[in-house]
Amino acid sequence: MPATPALPPKSLPRLFVRAALHEGAAVELDAAQTNYLGNVLRLGTGGEVLLFDGASGEWLARITQGGKKRMTLAVERRTKPVEQVPDLTLAFAPVKRAQVDWLAEKATELGIRHLQPVITQRTVVERVKLERLESIATEAAEQCGRTLLPTIAEPVSLAAFLTSVPATLYFADETGGGPAAMAFQPGPATILTGPEGGFTPEERTAIRALPHARAISLGPRILRAETAALAAVAAYMALAGDWR
Amino acid sequence: MPATPALPPKSLPRLFVRAALHEGAAVELDAAQTNYLGNVLRLGTGGEVLLFDGASGEWLARITQGGKKRMTLAVERRTKPVEQVPDLTLAFAPVKRAQVDWLAEKATELGIRHLQPVITQRTVVERVKLERLESIATEAAEQCGRTLLPTIAEPVSLAAFLTSVPATLYFADETGGGPAAMAFQPGPATILTGPEGGFTPEERTAIRALPHARAISLGPRILRAETAALAAVAAYMALAGDWR
Repeated sequence: MPATPALPPKSLPRLFVRAALHEGAAVELDAAQTNYLGNVLRLGTGGEVLLFDGASGEWLARITQGGKKRMTLAVERRTKPVEQVPDLTLAFAPVKRAQVDWLAEKATELGIRHLQPVITQRTVVERVKLERLESIATEAAEQCGRTLLPTIAEPVSLAAFLTSVPATLYFADETGGGPAAMAFQPGPATILTGPEGGFTPEERTAIRALPHARAISLGPRILRAETAALAAVAAYMALAGDWR
Repeated sequence: MPATPALPPKSLPRLFVRAALHEGAAVELDAAQTNYLGNVLRLGTGGEVLLFDGASGEWLARITQGGKKRMTLAVERRTKPVEQVPDLTLAFAPVKRAQVDWLAEKATELGIRHLQPVITQRTVVERVKLERLESIATEAAEQCGRTLLPTIAEPVSLAAFLTSVPATLYFADETGGGPAAMAFQPGPATILTGPEGGFTPEERTAIRALPHARAISLGPRILRAETAALAAVAAYMALAGDWR
């Protein structure tokens, strides 16, 4: 009888670390992670943890030295190869902090590769706390099993953004657009959603003038900015992403 | 030249009222709505408001009598017919309050007709505050332009729920299922999503035994319970709902 492959149980804690992981690597955790494993989960020497570094997949590691403020782990073996998340960017007009936090978490779970805040004429909130969003995205990646973190960029103006869109731009146009189910195609893409109040007519004209822009409709109801962004990403994943 | 139709501007306040609306009807607002219009928006006699009653579409009304605690409006004309939201039920295992609140809001915006909390073996939270959810759904309906409120039911056990599913049951199965893009078809349907930790093997067997059950996959990542529910609803709306 072939041996059952030794898959780690799903319930192991899973952490992102800033270290290059490989078999036999020794990894030292920071204070927050040490506190989480030692004090929250009560793990000590010999405890098993899954680690990922955003570059080399996921690894099973074992605590070799426990402590109150510091913990060392030895990497044993790879449990997952590097994933391929769909090459999808979500470009969104920032809204209130709680909503943007939520957006970063959910977009990470749904498998977005890159988050790009875009400042439009009706955007009220022009700053985002990048570190905060990165920390939220990291936690979501740890929880959802991703081996790559999404990248998050500093906000740019819509005009600057439009000069640099590298791929198909699906643009949620509340004044009308084609059905998302017909528009979404596999391949590198960006989804652009607006702020509360939507894009201005001039902005819509500028976006539609891009040769690779496709206006899509997200249905007959007025969606909040963060709902529109997430609904579009979910529909993309179902239709053209990796739900297939 | 034909007269421009007198459409109300989008920015009018929009309220759900428990009164049968028709041309000429006099509507008295409750204290909270009076406070909102009078003190928050500073509207007085002559001010225009959109009203809907969940049955007859949307109406333009005008404040005929202002006051600190009470306000009366006269209904002038219908601005929207009764909508047809897709006949979609979201059956979900309750999770923490903040997440369920969020689910009620987003599912309403996305156009769900009915919300059914379902208690499964791994469901930790067995109660929901129905009045609270109804109030959140009402606010979301006011904001997103719906003319029908979603209905929200008391929680039922999974076993009881399974004896009474009237239509196609799309069941998010984290152990594997068909691509949602292939499964979702127009027509009456229910989407069922599980709690943190998912369904138990026995529960999965019981669900799959239903002749109209179809297991669907929501991709390779582990989604939080509320993310799975919302992502499935968004994908359904894009593929088989009214985004088309």
